[in-house]
Amino acid sequence: MPYFDAASSAPLHPVARQALQASLDEGWADPARLYREGRRARLLLDAAREAAAEAVGCRPDELSFTGSGTRAVHLGIYGSLSGRRRVGRHLVVSAVEHSSVLHSAASHESDGGSVTRVAVDRTGRVSPDAYAEALRGDTALACLQSANHEVGTLQPVAEVAEACRAAGVPLLVDAAQSLAWGPVEGAWSILAASAHKWGGPAGVGLLAVRKGVRFAPQGPVDERESGRAPGFENIPAIVAAAAALRAVRAEAAAESVRLRALVERIRARVGELVPDVEVVGDPVRRLPHLVTFSCLYVDGESLLHELDRAEFSVSSGSSCTSSTLTPSHVLRAMGVLSEGNVRVSLPLGTAERDVERFLEVLPGVVASVRARLGAPAGASGAADPAGAEEFTVDSLGRLCPIPVIELAKAIGRVPVGGVVTVLADDEAARLDIPAWCEMRGQEYLGEHPAERGVAYRVRRTG
Amino acid sequence: MPYFDAASSAPLHPVARQALQASLDEGWADPARLYREGRRARLLLDAAREAAAEAVGCRPDELSFTGSGTRAVHLGIYGSLSGRRRVGRHLVVSAVEHSSVLHSAASHESDGGSVTRVAVDRTGRVSPDAYAEALRGDTALACLQSANHEVGTLQPVAEVAEACRAAGVPLLVDAAQSLAWGPVEGAWSILAASAHKWGGPAGVGLLAVRKGVRFAPQGPVDERESGRAPGFENIPAIVAAAAALRAVRAEAAAESVRLRALVERIRARVGELVPDVEVVGDPVRRLPHLVTFSCLYVDGESLLHELDRAEFSVSSGSSCTSSTLTPSHVLRAMGVLSEGNVRVSLPLGTAERDVERFLEVLPGVVASVRARLGAPAGASGAADPAGAEEFTVDSLGRLCPIPVIELAKAIGRVPVGGVVTVLADDEAARLDIPAWCEMRGQEYLGEHPAERGVAYRVRRTG
Repeated sequence: MPYFDAASSAPLHPVARQALQASLDEGWADPARLYREGRRARLLLDAAREAAAEAVGCRPDELSFTGSGTRAVHLGIYGSLSGRRRVGRHLVVSAVEHSSVLHSAASHESDGGSVTRVAVDRTGRVSPDAYAEALRGDTALACLQSANHEVGTLQPVAEVAEACRAAGVPLLVDAAQSLAWGPVEGAWSILAASAHKWGGPAGVGLLAVRKGVRFAPQGPVDERESGRAPGFENIPAIVAAAAALRAVRAEAAAESVRLRALVERIRARVGELVPDVEVVGDPVRRLPHLVTFSCLYVDGESLLHELDRAEFSVSSGSSCTSSTLTPSHVLRAMGVLSEGNVRVSLPLGTAERDVERFLEVLPGVVASVRARLGAPAGASGAADPAGAEEFTVDSLGRLCPIPVIELAKAIGRVPVGGVVTVLADDEAARLDIPAWCEMRGQEYLGEHPAERGVAYRVRRTG
Repeated sequence: MPYFDAASSAPLHPVARQALQASLDEGWADPARLYREGRRARLLLDAAREAAAEAVGCRPDELSFTGSGTRAVHLGIYGSLSGRRRVGRHLVVSAVEHSSVLHSAASHESDGGSVTRVAVDRTGRVSPDAYAEALRGDTALACLQSANHEVGTLQPVAEVAEACRAAGVPLLVDAAQSLAWGPVEGAWSILAASAHKWGGPAGVGLLAVRKGVRFAPQGPVDERESGRAPGFENIPAIVAAAAALRAVRAEAAAESVRLRALVERIRARVGELVPDVEVVGDPVRRLPHLVTFSCLYVDGESLLHELDRAEFSVSSGSSCTSSTLTPSHVLRAMGVLSEGNVRVSLPLGTAERDVERFLEVLPGVVASVRARLGAPAGASGAADPAGAEEFTVDSLGRLCPIPVIELAKAIGRVPVGGVVTVLADDEAARLDIPAWCEMRGQEYLGEHPAERGVAYRVRRTG
């Protein structure tokens, strides 16, 4: 039963399991205590800190363990903003950060701070120049992920770190997706990561704060973890997390080559096997194990459900698979198709035959979902030379991918040069109608508010 | 090797270990995902929530899991304060709460809020009337522990909850020390607890918020745990925590009787076996497994070190065993002797023979530390009828227990009715000199600032 969602959570690495079990007997006591059980716990904690710091590329006394990666991000952002309060209250983030960063930014805004969200290109990558331009005299902190969690695109961390250094702004790197593959290059100031992403147990985050970085932990603190992460340390899990990180790093060189080839195979084949697919993210500067694509005329929830029935576990940034009914903020920032979105992220050790089977299964699954939704087959139908020049489709109240399916059908009712207007109130239409036009070679004329919902206008060009 | 510090952290319960190991294979995936690994994780999480909620005495949808007990306290206090911001910014706590509560209170004060710390009596207990008087029209939240973590005294939670209900103020109960023994009685609004205190793994806290309580989570949130505790859930640890709580509850009735008798034995014998000992905390309304006493003329660190050499692991609220060089805030609030302080908290299953051996070992350990420090033997020496009426001891720069030892020696140099003044700058003297007077039947005249440090005056009465 192939699990292809390592980017959400990796299965526990066998080394993590061993380390966890071995340290349950030694690591349960309070490491702040002077008695033997406390000293033993302290030794385990110190050794884990050394190992994790080496993998991160920092000094052990720069590294704190937190209760989760999300917590590390929150503590890191708030501690830095607070430590540089005198400089100003401006925060720079990329538009495609993990929600833990964007939620912190939103919270900072509602506390009266200001935030600049640096745009990304269609591959999901920020431009170092655009990022540098966002830095201001009152910028307290800049945040950039090492690699995007939804599309795998690597960010230019070293260049952005250099721009931040030149501007005297600390850079916080969310390394959650990449730390398994190697340390983050460049002169970062603060780094956050999450153990369950690399095969460690849940419940362990890393927060590294370089010496000399102004940092003032916010809220109530205690004496644990250099005063940066209050609460009793979860030592067996910390030991397991550090052991797993060492173990995956030992496999990283060989596995990155192997998984990169498997992902390359998916990237190449998916467009050949399934019509109307857009593979998104940077084709080269990317995580080795992750590929994301979107399928026209498919709703993400049905697709995931069918793939799950076929025993493939993947995730999706489509609106209809989330409770918010909006497409993933990453796909929106990239301006790419969001419907029928599938993220495949291969765990270490993924078998080639499972990837091949996925490619065998996928076309039938997509076709069955499309058939059920009444999607148009193949390219847009022949233009109707006798049709009206203007035709309006009312998709109000219909959810993704219906507005796009109705657009695809309606385009056949106008002659070349004619215009179809789609009325829709589903948020995904804003992304998916322009994306459809690009994929289909039709001209997107833009949107304007309608009496109800939004009117999207498309001119038939062929 | 008897471990007598369950109140810091209990050894992992065998049931917790089993449950942890069993759920490592099923509980690592993201419970928010729709695929089978996610659904399995969700089932485990839901079942653990049901079990824990039953043990707490709340509805499953009122209960969130957090990354630690400290985190549960912080989230609970900030969420309640924020939810009742319109009512006011006044917070009531007892003076003997856990540091996680007091740190939150201090942080609230530095944010501009106001805090009332309700005093306790010499047993460490708040008076329900005094607590009720502290409630005001602008009180947003009241906090009270179910039982004190250092001396074991049970707090009148049900009475205080009733007073809070009458005043329309929500009551947050820190149940960390008592939840193993049973649910918290009374109409509490919010409850926090910590799994490693009851034999669950570290990394799991409980936060229960009753329906209808105004609660607005502070800072960045996400969709996990009803929006109350951001970050990926640590499901294997949560499963183990819930299983351990059920298991200890099943043993609670029998073990509380058995451990209560062992503690009773320590309470009765320690004063007979060791001269100049004060047993502190409520002798009856107390946790079954915990007893605290203080030994005159002994420094806590040496005492703990010697007990550790004798293979007993205990903790201490003495100043010299902490990094802050101040005695525990609990002992200070109670106004009891802090020097040579020892907390014994027995884990489930503690053998009677280990307690007996502790009582055998303790007198020699205390005597050896006293001999090394040159403590006076037995009662105060004979009064010197020819001595000066006033005698001053300069203990500036000397740490606990030296000022008290020097006082005890100097008292022999004055006649009955004469006065000894001790000059000291160690914070513990403020607590320990009056406590010595009470234990020795000498008259404490009070303190006043001296050119350096503080002058403590004692009149010889016998």
